[in-house]
This record gives sequence, structure tokens and C-alpha cells, in this order.
Amino acid sequence: MKSNNVQWHSSIVTRARREKCNGHKGAVVWFTGLSGSGKSTLAHAVEDYLHSGGCRTFVLDGDNVRHGLCADLGFTDVERTENIRRVGEVSKLFVEAGNIVLTAFISPFENDRSSVENILSPGDFIEIYCSCSLAVCEKRDVKGLYKKARAGEINNFTGISSIYEPPRNPALCIETDVSTLDESVKMVIEILKRKNLINFA
Amino acid sequence: MKSNNVQWHSSIVTRARREKCNGHKGAVVWFTGLSGSGKSTLAHAVEDYLHSGGCRTFVLDGDNVRHGLCADLGFTDVERTENIRRVGEVSKLFVEAGNIVLTAFISPFENDRSSVENILSPGDFIEIYCSCSLAVCEKRDVKGLYKKARAGEINNFTGISSIYEPPRNPALCIETDVSTLDESVKMVIEILKRKNLINFA
Repeated sequence: MKSNNVQWHSSIVTRARREKCNGHKGAVVWFTGLSGSGKSTLAHAVEDYLHSGGCRTFVLDGDNVRHGLCADLGFTDVERTENIRRVGEVSKLFVEAGNIVLTAFISPFENDRSSVENILSPGDFIEIYCSCSLAVCEKRDVKGLYKKARAGEINNFTGISSIYEPPRNPALCIETDVSTLDESVKMVIEILKRKNLINFA
Repeated sequence: MKSNNVQWHSSIVTRARREKCNGHKGAVVWFTGLSGSGKSTLAHAVEDYLHSGGCRTFVLDGDNVRHGLCADLGFTDVERTENIRRVGEVSKLFVEAGNIVLTAFISPFENDRSSVENILSPGDFIEIYCSCSLAVCEKRDVKGLYKKARAGEINNFTGISSIYEPPRNPALCIETDVSTLDESVKMVIEILKRKNLINFA
């Protein structure tokens, strides 16, 4: 760490005060899976449900991170790792602020996901695997990226020219090529209730 | 920008919905000034006031950023610029989430502060200059850093071996070697009220 001479002192407004004010706990709900597996769609749908229930939430995904905080990073292994590291650190800040953060990144490497879990407090990291066959993701190809990757126009594309390491022990595995969006949202909400992060019906 | 093939689509839960839910607007209150000028103390005191009034707030400062998101950065001009760029991008996300973000960084370069203002929507950046003479900051020397800088143990130390460019047109200039903390908090709150970001008494 290059940042010597920087002391940590805790905020007067603590996480506990924020959570009491919000009526729920902070946490990171980490969606991982192939491009096209439905991570972002599910994250936003869960957020909508939680927000309607009065929760303080935020979705971090490629759309709002890759254009801003990580606009200097590409998609090599090293850059993906740095991307996920930064997302982890920002998630930690949002949790400290009392939010339920929903992240939607391919996050293909197990080590990177573990590193995020390790900077958070125990219980703050809830890993959800959006499991969907490459064939289905490629057939959907909402953004036309698989076609480009197959044509060699995009390098380091997960599933085609870069590996994906599925979570070994996720809090939840959703087969997004089988479950509907509504069913998937309910599964996520059930997990959050079971972990006592939220308490509404 | 290296992040091609990433499309922007807006969240279902909009900033407007979050602000309505919170009862106040989102904004970045950007404190700038020399080390020891009281930025962090003031930011936390303002946060305490706002939180007690029911606002959703968060303080970003060296303490929670330099150890995490920016732990890979030192204090050269280039690294300071990247540090402030990242803080700006994180602030933007917090504002999008409906928060009043209070940032406490020396942020010595006018260009860096302008860059942050420019990535935000008009009116979202409120610059507050904590004006305090180098002599007073050095006399306080809470963290013992000025002593180290004078002894040559710290390089690129603002005010000693690195320049500080004061804001030309801040929303507010507080002489923190003259005003008390309570007076300073009141001045900041008045600005936020005048800008219709908050509406409590």
C-alpha cells in the first residue's frame, strides 16, 4: 500500500445508525455469470422490489462503472481483476452507508470474487450465480457481443476466448434459462429475508 | 475510453424516485483545503447534522478511500489526479443513489476539481474552500505530517513541497482558523438550504 501517513478514524455517523434509520441492513448482493445470463436485469428487478419496500439500494454494473470509475480499464485478465477490485471497494463504501448494493458483473475469476468477500465484514457478501448455458446466452446475444467475439472482433470474451469459473458455494444458484424473472426475484428476496437483512413481507 | 461494447441503460429505480423517497436532493459537497484545515472534521460534523435531520449522507475522505479504492495510489501529481478522478466517479454514483456526499480531500489542483464538477450534472457540485493559513495548519499538525514533510521524510506534501491552488469561485469560503466548528456547520447548511437541496429548519 502506497498510502502511508493516512490514519483511519471512524465516522460519527456509524453504519449502525444508518441501518437503524433505513430499517434494514447493508449488504452486497453479488450476481455473477456469463454475458447474457440476466445478471443486470435481475439486479435491477430486485432493486425495484426492494426500493418499493422502502430499502436503500444501488445497482453497480458495467453500465455505470465501465463508463466512469473504470473507463481506463479494458478486458485483459489484469484489468478485469482491477475492475472487480474497484467495484468491491465501492460496494464496501455503499454498505458502510447502509445500502443494499446489487452488483452485476461477469466477474469470471473466483479469486477476484473471494477478494471482494474478504474486504467485507462476514455476512456482507451474498453471492448469486446466474447459471445459464453458453448456448442460450449466445442465442440471446442481446448486445450482439457473442457474434463479434466469434468473428474475432472482441478479444478476451468470457465463454469464448476467456474463461469463466463458476462459484463453488454460492448463496444461491438461479438457472436463468429455466426460471422466470419474477421467480428469480422471489428467490433472491427469500435469501435476503433468511439472512435477516430485510424484514418486510 | 477502453470500455467499448458497453451500453448505457438507465436504472428502473431513478435518481428522482430515490430523492423523493429521501425527501432531499442528491449533491456533492466538496471540501478542499490544506492538510489540517479542518475539512474532514467539518464534513463529519455537517454529516451528523444532516443525518440527524433524516438525510441520506456519506463522507468520502482519505481515511476510507486511501486505504481501499485508492490504496494503489501515492501522492505524485499524476496519482493525486487519478485519486480525485476516482473520488469524483464514486461521488457521482452516490449522488445517483440520492445521497448528499461530503468529500474531504486536499484536492490541490483546480483542473482536478473542475473535472469532477464536469462529470456531474449542473448544480450537483458545491465547492467549499476551507481556508486556513499554512502557519496555523502547520502549528496544529494533528497527524504530525508537517513535521515529517519539513524533515524531508514525506515528499510531495501540499503547502511544503507541492502546490495548492485555491478555488477561484467556491460556493463558500470558510476561514477555519477564525470560525468555530458550529459556525462553519451552520454556514454549510445555509448554502444547502439556499440551493434547495434540503428543506428542514
